[in-house]
Amino acid sequence: MKQFLSVADAGDPSALAHLARQLKAAPWVHASLGQRKTLGLLFLNPSLRTRMSTQKAARHLGMDVMVMNMDQEGWRLETQDGAVMDGDKAEHIADAAAVIAQYCDIVGIRAFPGLQDRAADYAETFIRQFQRYSSVPVLSLESATRHPLQSLADLVTVQEHWHAPQAPKVVLAWAPHPRALPQAVANSFAEWMLAAGYPLTIAHPQGYALDPQFTTGAQITHHLREAVADADFVYIKSWSAWEPYGQVLCRDTGWMLTEAHLPKASTRIMHCLPVRRGVELSHELLEGPHALVQAQAGNRVWAAQAILVRLLEGLTNESTSPSVYSAKL
Amino acid sequence: MKQFLSVADAGDPSALAHLARQLKAAPWVHASLGQRKTLGLLFLNPSLRTRMSTQKAARHLGMDVMVMNMDQEGWRLETQDGAVMDGDKAEHIADAAAVIAQYCDIVGIRAFPGLQDRAADYAETFIRQFQRYSSVPVLSLESATRHPLQSLADLVTVQEHWHAPQAPKVVLAWAPHPRALPQAVANSFAEWMLAAGYPLTIAHPQGYALDPQFTTGAQITHHLREAVADADFVYIKSWSAWEPYGQVLCRDTGWMLTEAHLPKASTRIMHCLPVRRGVELSHELLEGPHALVQAQAGNRVWAAQAILVRLLEGLTNESTSPSVYSAKL
Amino acid sequence: MKQFLSVADAGDPSALAHLARQLKAAPWVHASLGQRKTLGLLFLNPSLRTRMSTQKAARHLGMDVMVMNMDQEGWRLETQDGAVMDGDKAEHIADAAAVIAQYCDIVGIRAFPGLQDRAADYAETFIRQFQRYSSVPVLSLESATRHPLQSLADLVTVQEHWHAPQAPKVVLAWAPHPRALPQAVANSFAEWMLAAGYPLTIAHPQGYALDPQFTTGAQITHHLREAVADADFVYIKSWSAWEPYGQVLCRDTGWMLTEAHLPKASTRIMHCLPVRRGVELSHELLEGPHALVQAQAGNRVWAAQAILVRLLEGLTNESTSPSVYSAKL
Repeated sequence: MKQFLSVADAGDPSALAHLARQLKAAPWVHASLGQRKTLGLLFLNPSLRTRMSTQKAARHLGMDVMVMNMDQEGWRLETQDGAVMDGDKAEHIADAAAVIAQYCDIVGIRAFPGLQDRAADYAETFIRQFQRYSSVPVLSLESATRHPLQSLADLVTVQEHWHAPQAPKVVLAWAPHPRALPQAVANSFAEWMLAAGYPLTIAHPQGYALDPQFTTGAQITHHLREAVADADFVYIKSWSAWEPYGQVLCRDTGWMLTEAHLPKASTRIMHCLPVRRGVELSHELLEGPHALVQAQAGNRVWAAQAILVRLLEGLTNESTSPSVYSAKL
Repeated sequence: MKQFLSVADAGDPSALAHLARQLKAAPWVHASLGQRKTLGLLFLNPSLRTRMSTQKAARHLGMDVMVMNMDQEGWRLETQDGAVMDGDKAEHIADAAAVIAQYCDIVGIRAFPGLQDRAADYAETFIRQFQRYSSVPVLSLESATRHPLQSLADLVTVQEHWHAPQAPKVVLAWAPHPRALPQAVANSFAEWMLAAGYPLTIAHPQGYALDPQFTTGAQITHHLREAVADADFVYIKSWSAWEPYGQVLCRDTGWMLTEAHLPKASTRIMHCLPVRRGVELSHELLEGPHALVQAQAGNRVWAAQAILVRLLEGLTNESTSPSVYSAKL
Repeated sequence: MKQFLSVADAGDPSALAHLARQLKAAPWVHASLGQRKTLGLLFLNPSLRTRMSTQKAARHLGMDVMVMNMDQEGWRLETQDGAVMDGDKAEHIADAAAVIAQYCDIVGIRAFPGLQDRAADYAETFIRQFQRYSSVPVLSLESATRHPLQSLADLVTVQEHWHAPQAPKVVLAWAPHPRALPQAVANSFAEWMLAAGYPLTIAHPQGYALDPQFTTGAQITHHLREAVADADFVYIKSWSAWEPYGQVLCRDTGWMLTEAHLPKASTRIMHCLPVRRGVELSHELLEGPHALVQAQAGNRVWAAQAILVRLLEGLTNESTSPSVYSAKL
C-alpha cells in the first residue's frame, strides 16, 4: 500500500478488516516491523481517538512517533500554488511537505474542511497538496471529505457482531447537532459499506443529501423511523448541509435516536464519537445493550495497525537510507 | 494498588517513601516491568514538574507514554450525568473515559478546581467521573482537592533530611500570592504528614482554614513567627480562602517567609514550586542553605516511579489482552 | 562538548560538519550512545524543522525525548534576578532551570528575541539565565541572536555541494518579509562561514547592518545584483533592522531574488525555511535547480545528531546517578 486516503486504497476492504482482527488477537506479532521507522502525525485539528489509537498502533509495530500540532506548535501553511505569501501563512505546503517527508517514513494528516467553499473542500486541497510535494506514504487521519481509518474500524465492528450468512441491513441516520459538522465520516461510512457489499439505507432531512460519489447504490429516505425499524446496524452521525453548503438547516429533535425507534432488540447502534448525548442520541441508548460505540473506538487501534502494516510493507528497503535524501534533492 | 488519588490509597506512606528511595538509588532496576504497557497522561491544566517527572518515571520502567492536553489538543468534556449536550462541551466524560481506558493501561489525570463552587470541587467531579467510567487504574496528577504525588515526594524529602529518633516538628505556613490558588497541595501535605505520624502545625490568616477532613490532629495558629520559630521543616504554600470560597482575602506581606523568621540554622524550608519569589518567599531563602525545594522537585521522579511500580504490580496479566476489550463492551 | 550556543562551542566547524556527514551515511552507528539519557526540548516559540529533526537525531542515538511547549503547556518564566513576582510570570527561570536539569541529561531551548530591547536580546537573557541555573549541557534550538544548529546544517550543505580546491564565494542576501524577523539566522550564518574560512559578502539595504561581532571580515554592500552575480552560494534571509531596532524599514520588492539575478547556472541558493514564496524568493527559484533549501532541511538531522554525539560524549558517567542530585542541592 502506497497511501491510505479512501476505500479505493484499501484493495479488498474485508481482507483489511480480517487483518485488523488478526492484529487484535495478537497485537505484538509484528513488533519489529516498524523498527527504525518514524511515523509523523500532523494535526491541523483536535483529535482524541485518532491521536491515541494511531500512536498505540505504531508502538505495537515498534515505530517511533512524532506528533506535530501544526497550527499550535508551528504555523499556518499556504496551499495555493503561485501565491504571493504576504499574509498570515508562514510557509508553503510544498516546502513543509518535502521537509517533513525527509524526517518521516509515513505521514498521517488530519485536515478538516473549512465548510465555506464546497469545491475547495471536495478537492481535498490540503492532503492532496501535501501528498504531491512529499515523497512518503500519506495516511489520512480524517481529511476534508473522508475518514477512512474510522470506516475500517466500523467495518471491523460490524463484522465482529454479525454472524448470519446474509449481509446485514445497515442504515446511516443523520442526527441533530448544535454545530455544523463535516460530511467526512458519513461519506466514508457510505463508501466502505457499499464497497463491502452491504445494502445501505441513508436517512436524512431535506437538504442533507451526501455527494453521490459516495452514496450511489444506497437507498435514500427522509423517514427515520421506517428506515431504522428493521435495521441490523444503525450508524448515527450529524453532518452539515450540501446546499447551502456547510449550514445547519434542521434542528428537529425528532431526529435524535431513542429506544422508541428500535423495536428490534438485536439492532446495534454505532457512532464514531464524540457524541452529543441528549442531542444526537439518548443517554439510555448509548449506555444500553444496543450500543457498539465503545467497540468501534477500541477497534480504531487495530484498523490503524492494519494500515500501518500494509504501508510499512510497501516501503522499499532504501526508503530511509541516506541516498534517498540525495535522490529527493 | 488499584488507584492513587489520596493517602488512603497509599497503604503505609513510609513504606512507599522507602520504595521511592530505593528506586532513586537504582532507577533502572525494574526497567522491563512496564514493557508493552501504556501510560496515558491527561492534562486539563498546565504542568511542568508533574509532566516531566512522571514521563521520566514511566520510562525508567519501560512504559510507553502518551500525553494528551485535553483542552488544547482535544475539546472540553461534560461531567454532568444526563446533560443535554447542546453547549460548548463536545464529549461526555463517560464516553471519553471508556475510550481512553481502552488505549491505556494506567491513566494519570490533572484537573484543577474551578474555585467557584466548593461543593463541586470537593466532590472531585472530574477525576471521580473519569474513574467511574474507565476500567483502568487512575493516578492523580493533581485533582481539585489533592496532589498526592507531590506529598509523597515531600515525605521522601523530609525523611532524607531527618535522622533523629523523634518525629520532626513540621509546619505548613500559608503565604501571599497574586492569584487565587487551589487548596490541593496544602490539603495533601497535611493528610500525608499526619498519616506519617508527624506533629503538624498549620499557620494561616483568618479565613484560610482548610477542610478538617485533612487537618484533624494538626494544631492551627494565626501567628506565623511563633509557629516556625522552632520548626524542623516549614512548608510554604499559598491557597485561596475556604469562606468565601476561592477568594484572596489576605495580601499582608508579613506572611512572606524570610530569613528573619528562622532563628534555627537547621530549619529546612519546602515548597512544591512554582513559587513567586519576593511574594511567597524571599530570594535569599530559596537560594540559601535552608531550602529543600530542588530536592523535592527531584524526588517527584521517584515518588511517581514508586506509584507506577505499585500500579503495574496491581494489573492483572489479562489487562492488556484483547479479551478485556470484549469484556468491557 | 559542554554546551552548544554558538560557533565558539564548535571547535573546528569543518570537523563537526565532517562528523555530521558521517552520521548521514550511517545514522544508527551510535544507536546506543544515548541509551537511558533524556533530551528535554523546551520551546518558547513555534518550530517545525528544529522540533522534528532534533527528535529524530536523538532517536538515532537511542535517547528519550521530552518536549515541553513552555508557554502553552506550562507558564511564563521570570528571567530577572531579584524580581518581585507579583505579575503574570508564574515561575522564576532559576527554579525551573534547576528542576528541568534534574529530569534531563541535555536540554535544548528555543527562545526568540522580543525585538523591543536590543540590549536585552543581545544579552541572550533567557538562554544564559537558564544555563546559569541548570547543571546540564544546554543546546540552542535558536536563541535571541543565534541559530547554530541551522548554521552547522548550512555548512554541511555547502560542503556537500562544493568540490573545487579554492573556497566558494558565499553571499548572504537580505530579503523582504511582511513581518519583522530576528537577526539570529543571519548572525549565525555569517559567523559560521567566516569561521570556516569562506569569503563572505553581505548584501542588505541601508539600516539593516548586522552586529559587527558576527560580520567582521565580511564585505558589506547595498547592491544585491552585483553581489550575487558571480556567487557560488547565495543565502537568502530576511531580518529586521538594527536601528531603529526590530523594525521593518524596507519593503522594496527589488530585493526579492529571482532567476534574473543569477547569470551563473552553477550558483546555488539557500534558505533556512520557512520562506515566504513570492516575497523573499520566487517560486521558480525555489523549485528549480539552483535551490538547496530541501538539502539544508534534511541536513538539520545530521547537524543535530553530530552535536548530540559530542554533548553525550561530554557527559560524565555519573551525570545521571542519584549522587548528582544531592551534589546539586
